[in-house]
Amino acid sequence: MTDKKTKANTLWGGRFEGGVSDIMEKINASIDFDKILYRQDIKGSIEHCKMLVTTDIISSEDGIAIQNGLRQIEGEIDAGDFEFSAALEDIHMNIEARLTEIIGSTAGRLHTARSRNDQVATDFKLWVRDACDQADEALKALQFVLINKAEENADVIIPGFTHLQNAQPVTFGHHLMAYFEMFTRDRARFADARKRLNECPLGAAALAGTSFPIDRHQTAKALGFDRPTYNSMDSVSDRDFALEFLSAASISAIHVSRLAEEMVMWSCAQFKFIQMSDSFTTGSSIMPQKRNPDAAELCRGKSGRIIGSLNSLLITMKGLVLTFSKDMQEDKEVTFDAVETYSLIIAAMTGMVEDMKVNADHMKKATEVGFITATDLADWVVRVLGLPFRNAHHITGSLVALAEKKGCDLDGLTLEEMQQVEPKITKEVFNVLSVESSVGSRVSFGGTAPSEVLKQVALAKERIG
Amino acid sequence: MTDKKTKANTLWGGRFEGGVSDIMEKINASIDFDKILYRQDIKGSIEHCKMLVTTDIISSEDGIAIQNGLRQIEGEIDAGDFEFSAALEDIHMNIEARLTEIIGSTAGRLHTARSRNDQVATDFKLWVRDACDQADEALKALQFVLINKAEENADVIIPGFTHLQNAQPVTFGHHLMAYFEMFTRDRARFADARKRLNECPLGAAALAGTSFPIDRHQTAKALGFDRPTYNSMDSVSDRDFALEFLSAASISAIHVSRLAEEMVMWSCAQFKFIQMSDSFTTGSSIMPQKRNPDAAELCRGKSGRIIGSLNSLLITMKGLVLTFSKDMQEDKEVTFDAVETYSLIIAAMTGMVEDMKVNADHMKKATEVGFITATDLADWVVRVLGLPFRNAHHITGSLVALAEKKGCDLDGLTLEEMQQVEPKITKEVFNVLSVESSVGSRVSFGGTAPSEVLKQVALAKERIG
Amino acid sequence: MTDKKTKANTLWGGRFEGGVSDIMEKINASIDFDKILYRQDIKGSIEHCKMLVTTDIISSEDGIAIQNGLRQIEGEIDAGDFEFSAALEDIHMNIEARLTEIIGSTAGRLHTARSRNDQVATDFKLWVRDACDQADEALKALQFVLINKAEENADVIIPGFTHLQNAQPVTFGHHLMAYFEMFTRDRARFADARKRLNECPLGAAALAGTSFPIDRHQTAKALGFDRPTYNSMDSVSDRDFALEFLSAASISAIHVSRLAEEMVMWSCAQFKFIQMSDSFTTGSSIMPQKRNPDAAELCRGKSGRIIGSLNSLLITMKGLVLTFSKDMQEDKEVTFDAVETYSLIIAAMTGMVEDMKVNADHMKKATEVGFITATDLADWVVRVLGLPFRNAHHITGSLVALAEKKGCDLDGLTLEEMQQVEPKITKEVFNVLSVESSVGSRVSFGGTAPSEVLKQVALAKERIG
Amino acid sequence: MTDKKTKANTLWGGRFEGGVSDIMEKINASIDFDKILYRQDIKGSIEHCKMLVTTDIISSEDGIAIQNGLRQIEGEIDAGDFEFSAALEDIHMNIEARLTEIIGSTAGRLHTARSRNDQVATDFKLWVRDACDQADEALKALQFVLINKAEENADVIIPGFTHLQNAQPVTFGHHLMAYFEMFTRDRARFADARKRLNECPLGAAALAGTSFPIDRHQTAKALGFDRPTYNSMDSVSDRDFALEFLSAASISAIHVSRLAEEMVMWSCAQFKFIQMSDSFTTGSSIMPQKRNPDAAELCRGKSGRIIGSLNSLLITMKGLVLTFSKDMQEDKEVTFDAVETYSLIIAAMTGMVEDMKVNADHMKKATEVGFITATDLADWVVRVLGLPFRNAHHITGSLVALAEKKGCDLDGLTLEEMQQVEPKITKEVFNVLSVESSVGSRVSFGGTAPSEVLKQVALAKERIG
Repeated sequence: MTDKKTKANTLWGGRFEGGVSDIMEKINASIDFDKILYRQDIKGSIEHCKMLVTTDIISSEDGIAIQNGLRQIEGEIDAGDFEFSAALEDIHMNIEARLTEIIGSTAGRLHTARSRNDQVATDFKLWVRDACDQADEALKALQFVLINKAEENADVIIPGFTHLQNAQPVTFGHHLMAYFEMFTRDRARFADARKRLNECPLGAAALAGTSFPIDRHQTAKALGFDRPTYNSMDSVSDRDFALEFLSAASISAIHVSRLAEEMVMWSCAQFKFIQMSDSFTTGSSIMPQKRNPDAAELCRGKSGRIIGSLNSLLITMKGLVLTFSKDMQEDKEVTFDAVETYSLIIAAMTGMVEDMKVNADHMKKATEVGFITATDLADWVVRVLGLPFRNAHHITGSLVALAEKKGCDLDGLTLEEMQQVEPKITKEVFNVLSVESSVGSRVSFGGTAPSEVLKQVALAKERIG
Repeated sequence: MTDKKTKANTLWGGRFEGGVSDIMEKINASIDFDKILYRQDIKGSIEHCKMLVTTDIISSEDGIAIQNGLRQIEGEIDAGDFEFSAALEDIHMNIEARLTEIIGSTAGRLHTARSRNDQVATDFKLWVRDACDQADEALKALQFVLINKAEENADVIIPGFTHLQNAQPVTFGHHLMAYFEMFTRDRARFADARKRLNECPLGAAALAGTSFPIDRHQTAKALGFDRPTYNSMDSVSDRDFALEFLSAASISAIHVSRLAEEMVMWSCAQFKFIQMSDSFTTGSSIMPQKRNPDAAELCRGKSGRIIGSLNSLLITMKGLVLTFSKDMQEDKEVTFDAVETYSLIIAAMTGMVEDMKVNADHMKKATEVGFITATDLADWVVRVLGLPFRNAHHITGSLVALAEKKGCDLDGLTLEEMQQVEPKITKEVFNVLSVESSVGSRVSFGGTAPSEVLKQVALAKERIG
Repeated sequence: MTDKKTKANTLWGGRFEGGVSDIMEKINASIDFDKILYRQDIKGSIEHCKMLVTTDIISSEDGIAIQNGLRQIEGEIDAGDFEFSAALEDIHMNIEARLTEIIGSTAGRLHTARSRNDQVATDFKLWVRDACDQADEALKALQFVLINKAEENADVIIPGFTHLQNAQPVTFGHHLMAYFEMFTRDRARFADARKRLNECPLGAAALAGTSFPIDRHQTAKALGFDRPTYNSMDSVSDRDFALEFLSAASISAIHVSRLAEEMVMWSCAQFKFIQMSDSFTTGSSIMPQKRNPDAAELCRGKSGRIIGSLNSLLITMKGLVLTFSKDMQEDKEVTFDAVETYSLIIAAMTGMVEDMKVNADHMKKATEVGFITATDLADWVVRVLGLPFRNAHHITGSLVALAEKKGCDLDGLTLEEMQQVEPKITKEVFNVLSVESSVGSRVSFGGTAPSEVLKQVALAKERIG
Repeated sequence: MTDKKTKANTLWGGRFEGGVSDIMEKINASIDFDKILYRQDIKGSIEHCKMLVTTDIISSEDGIAIQNGLRQIEGEIDAGDFEFSAALEDIHMNIEARLTEIIGSTAGRLHTARSRNDQVATDFKLWVRDACDQADEALKALQFVLINKAEENADVIIPGFTHLQNAQPVTFGHHLMAYFEMFTRDRARFADARKRLNECPLGAAALAGTSFPIDRHQTAKALGFDRPTYNSMDSVSDRDFALEFLSAASISAIHVSRLAEEMVMWSCAQFKFIQMSDSFTTGSSIMPQKRNPDAAELCRGKSGRIIGSLNSLLITMKGLVLTFSKDMQEDKEVTFDAVETYSLIIAAMTGMVEDMKVNADHMKKATEVGFITATDLADWVVRVLGLPFRNAHHITGSLVALAEKKGCDLDGLTLEEMQQVEPKITKEVFNVLSVESSVGSRVSFGGTAPSEVLKQVALAKERIG
């Protein structure tokens, strides 16, 4: 293996200029991305250290020296004064090496009854737990702007689509509250993920537990966990918490993508249902009236990336034997990227909803095509004339066909024309043919009537927590 | 558009012999797969009907006729006497058409204040809810066999791996209990999914709610839901419940794939840690001693399929505008396939764990290489001699190097040889160098000591619920 | 293991009524889906048999008996007279067992110098090769209808969008020809996949090759392969051909999904650019004018399923040791499903394009908003007045702002008004402000001018092959 | 919208300290990652500029100024002296702004007859084309080390596995050459992707082509493309080239993952087939003999990440209407990451194969269990005694059972013992029972015999190109 570097340069075409050692460092070191864990790492080390003192595994003096050293390091990193080294591979070794510089060989006592395997599992869990909390906070903010916008638009009428075809008129407030429900479920999913991950791996050591008389309940409690994990091998092999976060984020990103798709569509010249703010659109130097809905498009596009991250980690974890395999180092970049991306799209969506200007006129006008109250007519026939629904459907179909032929909407037909189709129809029918009466009548629980939307809004304010 | 069929045959190469109508029927009809929902569909219809009677929307007589008709149809399908028609597209229309045959036009009253959109959402939710319950039951059975096997093997020693390299000895019971933890989390995930989906969409109608004076709380309660959904548009647009099931199943399938990978490896000639039963292996007519671990390999392979299903539905749902789009019909096949596949791998894994024969001798023998108790030695140096962990590491490294040079394991060194490396070492050190003492000493909470495993087992029996 | 069945019933909740044997049969048998390979299997066996005769490994008489038997079996399966047995696991064993029934123990000679591993690889390759050919044929048909539709609509003007915002006018023929290009690349991808898979695995035997003096070139040639595979272990381990097919199908499905999305949007009440035919839409009994674009939505939705299949097989193949692992049995269901699905969406898209009715008026009208010829104005300023592009942009921006203020389009401004912004502007500028002149001017290679579209169409007719 | 920033801080919990403008900049700007395209961007601009001069669209003087300016900028970026600005969003605007600083408003002429849409498509294609070339070079290097290692190990015997069970002996050189085949297909896939992408989008302008008399054939040729793209709308909407690269990389990563899995397994204490070099393993301060195969594990793990990237971009592109949507900006990060990751795993695998030390003794010893030559015995019975294969299987099975009972391998049976099972067996049979004779006999094309492996190696040296 003499002259490895030269051979490498010849063989591998100069892409890795340092030869073998450069390749290994690049593929192996994680410090570039795992330094983000430094607060969690130091917090975990401090509590581990306190426990070692409590259990008389190390002395009080050593414990104080270690804790002071760790706090000093945290300050250095906070201040941007810490030099990270790729040769030291990861955040744990970088901090430990610095601790040795500061307090000498006593630093070596910190790693008693601990290993990098349980340490990284603890750090990463703490970080994902924070990400759950931040997701909850961000979603709550998004829910607030949705509720406010829904309240303002409780009686604004817009076509309700199925198959992107006009189906029934609904209120825009109602439409927005549908997203409130989705984000409610998302928050619950993050809360469940948080609850489930909240067992502390610290003390599992490399994989087998330890012979030191440690107190895992103490560290678990001090770090805000509900309890220590039950099985040391599972503790260091488990990455479910990252997978569950990514699942919840993917499902939530689907919701964002749907609203983003609607916003892009609502903003186009053919719809003009809303106008997005300058803050979330880009213009064109040549077409100053143009508002490209970039942020909405990016929200939609980035949802694919979050799903890609979930998929990636599922693939990486599949079929790994217990306990730690280095493949598992791939858990972090995808999770960090997904958390950043998710945080960004929720913030952008919150801003877009808050800022969007509703064109109630265009929305209303769009309901004036497509015989959008045909269902109301059919329901009237059932309710008032007592016919079975399927027969009522048939009658309504004939009336729509008649209106289409005549070139008018349903309320453009005369009573006589209607009675030619069904003699029992009375003039009372005209009460249900307007879009206002249509939405106003749908007062079933969760229905689209403005009164019901306001009830939903009030309830939402309570439910939001 | 005359002679469409002939043109089609020319153009599309004969793959769709019936031309256009055949293509449309093939792409559009769902009856081939959604007939699986018939029990849920009939159950939902019966409760909807009862509610229509309670609220005086239809008469008692009509209600009784409809319910009797539906029960007759359920009997027909149960008995295999029902002829499904692709022309009638889906399970809902097939049942309604048959109901009309049986009770005449009164059948048409059943669809009052309901649409296929809320109906299919209800049916599918009921079905996924059942799937959650079955997953829980199946996982519980798997946990039982794991607990039993762990109890039997609480003191059987096996190498604990990191990077598939011998790291520390552990007990096989402990290793199995790691999977108990994973499946515990899986059950909790299914339970959370079930809890979250348990809101009833019935009464959302097409998308806007209804003007009929329905009682959504009645149907929700009768169908075992906690409450009706809060928003009618969300009710018919939402497929989160399927996505969440698929997420939980994917994460759980990862666990199955890991154990399956281990079983395949443990069964190979180089390991011989276990022998799988004839029931879950296939042989060879030519090599009668051969036991191909087909079922384990299929468990591992099929986990990819479940992840594929999750991915597929996430993709399909992304960017869909509210409310119902026909894309959403793609929700069912992937979910049905994933549920069937998941159910199969859990059952197969349960059987494999129960049946596997443990070769304790081979396991133990495998711990006799690789200086597997080096960590115990280092811990002893820390604990007894009071040196910092990193120094202890250094001393241990020197002793291992010495043993390697001498061609023996650590307990093959003499005390004198050890003292040349570190004079303070006493003969007491030999107490920690055997694999038995190593595992025996790891009594920290969740550690691998046989006594601790038995505690975990006892606790698991309580926790399993 | 006595009373396995009862235990199973207790433990696994009755979902697998036959107990262990039922689980194993369900998870292991492939006959339900691999019977689709029967033609390929028989074809491969016949050529293998002929080669065994040519090389004197078996006698002519035996060879004739075997071939006749196989042809008889093919006839039986064609006619639906063959009884498949799950106990015989797969198509290969089903056929071999039947051959033994027909010709006795001579049947056993067919398997000389062959194993199920090379046999299934050959069968599956032949099947995927056919699927490539069918994809090519189907895509060609789709290209024809696109060319025809493009030719008919070479001068129909429609807004060209970026960010779904009106950007520049284009011709609808040009828009359709963009898809011609996509499907051209797709065909090339399938052709490359076919070319690459076209090496024959037969004769690789179980994995190591054989000591029989077989002639692999003979069978390769007879089965239409370019050559035998070079390495026997690769031959039985390789499923690249399925992965490459699924990749090509996924990319092509993306194209279909984009056109489908456009069709759904073009069909909505706000756009009304096209009307889809009854053949590919569904109606509503209550709203007879309604045309739900179900087939387009399903094309869009099913693209997610094809991507899911690709993902699934990639996951399953990842990390498998050589040579055959049973995981690889998972290759077939996803591939078969993807081929069926892909075939369906291409056929449906072909029909939808052919049938769609273009509303040229609505398309044109949609270009009359958004100052869609602003770029033409800027280009005129550059070309005629000689200003740098960025300055021209600035001038155009001012003119658009002026027009917006005045409430007219660009050609609604007077020359004087224009000259207030830029004095050098002449009346010649009005020649470039209409959408007709805009599209007419874009005669650069591949541009949207009707003349250029007709050239593209003519070229396409040559290129289509 | 006054005091947006304050509101943002309140609502969005301080995660985006700059409020709205910060969110938009973060979600919208691409300069952080697309600066990697600077060489391609400048190259494209220079050729576009030359063409504008040739076609008299801009003057020679302006052309020279622009080209000199661009070259100066390239030098600045090369030297690390260029300040990138997120406010200028992307690499194109950053370069254009700097060009204006250097040469004044003449810079504005460069953008004549061009838009960012065709510019970015061109840049990205050029970059992916380079990535294809680098992949080819890297794979070729990997093939060379495989060939060399195979040649060295042409007669080293190792168990050939199916289901990870001993099946037949093979040569290690043969096993390695299986990977040569896989990487040969991979190179062909990248070559096809390169060929297919090699059409130049430049001149498509925003989407419709241009009215300037440009010469797209000139720029296409100058940039090394085979021709200009045929359709301007497709030109700016198409990201097939990235998807196809990602597909090829994913399939190739599967191959890497399989070899990596084998290496991890071959390195464990139970196998000891190979020893990996220090360069690609990490040790343990406590267990100096330990060699954790980190690089192999990371190769295996990172394959999941590449598949995730493919999946991500497929999802993002699905269902996008023509032409450019901002979602498409998501194409770059996943592609850049996948190219970097892929490059890294190929380089690491090349080094690992080159460095690995083969333990021929352990490999051979592993073939001495499992009656691994049973197939040879059966083949002998067919070939010499003329029995049908299935009968030969039965006889072999009986002999294996006899040997198992006697506790010996097949060649430990006496001739008399064999003749009790099948009287026609002669002592000649012993010639086929050793693993050496087994592998030596498999001389069929592509078989595992050392002589055949050396032929394959020689052929590979020719085929490698």
